[in-house]
Amino acid sequence: MWCSIFLQRGVVDAAKPIIEEEILTKLDTKHLSSTQTNPFRIADFGCSTGHNSFPAIQIITEAVEKKFQTEKGSTSRTPDFHVFFNDQLMNDFNTLFHSLPPQRKYHAAGAPGPFHGRLLPNASLDFAYSSCALNWLSEVPKAVADRNSPAWNNGKVHYTGAKKEVYEAYSNHYANNIESFLKARAEELVSGGLMALLVPAVPTFKDSETSYTTPTEMDLIGSCLVDMARNGILSEEKVDTFNFPLYFTIPEELKTIIERNQGFSIERMEILNNPGKRTLPSAYARATYLRAVFEGLLINHFGTEIMDELFDRYTKKLAASPLFLDPDNEKSIIIFVLLKRKVA
Amino acid sequence: MWCSIFLQRGVVDAAKPIIEEEILTKLDTKHLSSTQTNPFRIADFGCSTGHNSFPAIQIITEAVEKKFQTEKGSTSRTPDFHVFFNDQLMNDFNTLFHSLPPQRKYHAAGAPGPFHGRLLPNASLDFAYSSCALNWLSEVPKAVADRNSPAWNNGKVHYTGAKKEVYEAYSNHYANNIESFLKARAEELVSGGLMALLVPAVPTFKDSETSYTTPTEMDLIGSCLVDMARNGILSEEKVDTFNFPLYFTIPEELKTIIERNQGFSIERMEILNNPGKRTLPSAYARATYLRAVFEGLLINHFGTEIMDELFDRYTKKLAASPLFLDPDNEKSIIIFVLLKRKVA
Repeated sequence: MWCSIFLQRGVVDAAKPIIEEEILTKLDTKHLSSTQTNPFRIADFGCSTGHNSFPAIQIITEAVEKKFQTEKGSTSRTPDFHVFFNDQLMNDFNTLFHSLPPQRKYHAAGAPGPFHGRLLPNASLDFAYSSCALNWLSEVPKAVADRNSPAWNNGKVHYTGAKKEVYEAYSNHYANNIESFLKARAEELVSGGLMALLVPAVPTFKDSETSYTTPTEMDLIGSCLVDMARNGILSEEKVDTFNFPLYFTIPEELKTIIERNQGFSIERMEILNNPGKRTLPSAYARATYLRAVFEGLLINHFGTEIMDELFDRYTKKLAASPLFLDPDNEKSIIIFVLLKRKVA
Repeated sequence: MWCSIFLQRGVVDAAKPIIEEEILTKLDTKHLSSTQTNPFRIADFGCSTGHNSFPAIQIITEAVEKKFQTEKGSTSRTPDFHVFFNDQLMNDFNTLFHSLPPQRKYHAAGAPGPFHGRLLPNASLDFAYSSCALNWLSEVPKAVADRNSPAWNNGKVHYTGAKKEVYEAYSNHYANNIESFLKARAEELVSGGLMALLVPAVPTFKDSETSYTTPTEMDLIGSCLVDMARNGILSEEKVDTFNFPLYFTIPEELKTIIERNQGFSIERMEILNNPGKRTLPSAYARATYLRAVFEGLLINHFGTEIMDELFDRYTKKLAASPLFLDPDNEKSIIIFVLLKRKVA
């Protein structure tokens, strides 16, 4: 799914030592299903076509193996891993399956469907993982595309710089989505099971919101769409009814939502360290990346015809905007959270 | 996958009462993982895009539910079903996932890969199912496409009417494939777990082989290819190196192979009753069906250019052949086998 172009590459690498340490210290093998005759089950929620998922799964399986060897002596058998790759129905599972590492040490399965609902049987999962996926909402909050609602988001395509009601509609929808996600995972995880989340976010809502380039990149697409509506290429109605189903939380907000779910203890929560040196991709590279991520969404609403012009305009605006010329303006962060399923 | 066009429709319907009866009488809930806190896991091996799989899974889940209610009283909880849909990597899992019944009472997962190997963790599966899939070989036996082998199958594309060595190469490959399939499933199934197989076959090898229309249909494609090579449209080399990776066993042979695996007891084995009245599809309908099944295989070897001509020729030969005018000449059968994983 989608992290900032600055962050996408290094996320797994930056999370690696933390995930390894947490599995070694927090994985409670006594409560896990694998301590009976069962395998050790892992799921990645929002895996896309696997490019960033496979390295993460390798880190998790190797750390779990190490933990089992440490606890049970080097003669104990390696757990039989069963890994579930989840994403929405519209995800390209054919590509995912063809991309599976041939030398993998686990049985791979696809688990299609929205991760805000149940996907796996009760108490069947030992380790849940999700990276750069929980910033996606299940859908655009209905009120923001409704002309008769006080939260109607006309002339904009996201909540940055929009009126308070728009922001609240997004914020409430996000909270509901995360609550549904946690409820489903609490049912699926075994007692003592761990969940590692890597959540795209911003450090605070207090600064001028336009200083966060990640949400602003979407806002910039919005301004291109508004320009095209003014030039008669699109109807204003079309632009007014389009909004991006994405939300960037802050650490305090995420913590509050998680604590409302009684099923988990927060074992660790921190902002992931800057994953490596940030280099500045060209406007063209950034536009190409955003097009790859959002084109499906935009085509669904606007049709294919306007895409080339939209992203031409977008590339030009990006190149001309001083905000995007300095990587230090990139304020998006990744929150790392490790949760443990409380013993029922 | 592929049953005879006569049989494909009615197979699930014909098997329904047998599967229901066997689950009610033979399913040993004491040994099953679901009697602990675990879900009841089912896998369909060779499910294609699900068209014939979904009805079968519904029959199986309903029968298991009924069995649980009968054994444990109507107040006992319904098992939490986890269903694994398996087929080769080249299968269209995107279509399969989009076709999943929206009202299904189970968690669905895809399990990609060849079913002659391991796909699921040890002792994790309660019920295995495979319909019209075990007639596909893992690949064409190498010797039949090898000019230097006594089993070289020149001028033909299958074993019907071919020399003894060709037939033996197919037969040995089939035995190895079924042995691998049984070995993998024996590891995956829990003690006491059941496996229902619906295996395309012929009643006996003793009659003139050309009286079996199903293999002969492939032979007829072969004769079209040979004609095209004679007319210079194809090279003879191309035809000599192409063979269909399909084999139709007989009940006695299948029984012998199964008995060699010590992990299963044969609980029931019979020829499935003629599923409904056989109607005679037109030569065109039969050719269209065969084209849908085999085109991918043929394009891989011969390219796309010759497909229209090949199936034009095939339709004409089929229409002109008296063997295909009478549905009573259709001698293909489906063997039903119910196996139980012996208690380890």
